[in-house]
Amino acid sequence: MTKQRIAIDMDDVMADTFAKLVKTTNERRGTNWVKAEINTPELNAKFREDYEPVREMLWEKGFFADFEVMEGAQEVIEKLHKKYEIFIVSAALEFPQSLSEKLTWLDKYFPYIGWKHTVFCGHKYMIKADYLIDDHEKNLVNFTGTPLLFDAPHNQHNFEYKRLMNWKEVGEYLL
Amino acid sequence: MTKQRIAIDMDDVMADTFAKLVKTTNERRGTNWVKAEINTPELNAKFREDYEPVREMLWEKGFFADFEVMEGAQEVIEKLHKKYEIFIVSAALEFPQSLSEKLTWLDKYFPYIGWKHTVFCGHKYMIKADYLIDDHEKNLVNFTGTPLLFDAPHNQHNFEYKRLMNWKEVGEYLL
Repeated sequence: MTKQRIAIDMDDVMADTFAKLVKTTNERRGTNWVKAEINTPELNAKFREDYEPVREMLWEKGFFADFEVMEGAQEVIEKLHKKYEIFIVSAALEFPQSLSEKLTWLDKYFPYIGWKHTVFCGHKYMIKADYLIDDHEKNLVNFTGTPLLFDAPHNQHNFEYKRLMNWKEVGEYLL
Repeated sequence: MTKQRIAIDMDDVMADTFAKLVKTTNERRGTNWVKAEINTPELNAKFREDYEPVREMLWEKGFFADFEVMEGAQEVIEKLHKKYEIFIVSAALEFPQSLSEKLTWLDKYFPYIGWKHTVFCGHKYMIKADYLIDDHEKNLVNFTGTPLLFDAPHNQHNFEYKRLMNWKEVGEYLL
């Protein structure tokens, strides 16, 4: 029987992109944001006021190279990989310098996936998969499989999709 | 009404990758291959004997930066773009250094497409589109839409797919 296919977003789903945004914003703006405390839409909006003026960090060489892995991602994705076909689908083409850094990062933490099952794109609605795990509503809205919203500070307003709070919940839902 | 979607391969379909392979092989091996004359499976096999030992060119910085555009590609793709939704789908992740060069190349010759409609991947069978124009059988075989084989020296053995000899024929078929 053909395995079901899961498309998994990278930033803020597999990789803790937000932690790096917070750290770099603090360094450049002299602020003292703590990632775990930015947990309401209001606080996220306040944080973004400090972050937006230094958003050029996203286009800088090396920015995407050293993200932490999201807690539980390695353990759960390795299990998912045995039961499902996994594609990593990252809307990374806005940041051309990030692409080789992202490939290296994936090879380091998820070496069994490989470049043939990796996709760097803009839109995601032309990806044919049974599930898409993503933190952005814009990626889930026209997806033709089952959309799964990975919890993040910036998506707290959304109640339309099945929300998974962390990788433990992803495992419970899909395994 | 929703537009039909066409996925278009880059190398040897939009971009004359083979011309650069021939040129670089000649430079490095002291050979005198002429691209237009490599037009049978036998001659292609002979050419590959000279090319394979210098295949590392594909991983070198700058290699993908200066390809010629395939004849008629700009004119026909601009017309297709008015009638269809176009995605560029390139199995480029084997060559991480090529990715930013490919984005720059696309912006130069096909500026209206944009990164949101560009996909760099390995496999292509998870792309949901009505048509895929590609010179490689391996990309067409599991594609779920209509596969269209773009003529190339290395696919002369294939009689399974609708073959389009050049961009003029693509235009006649799809417009």
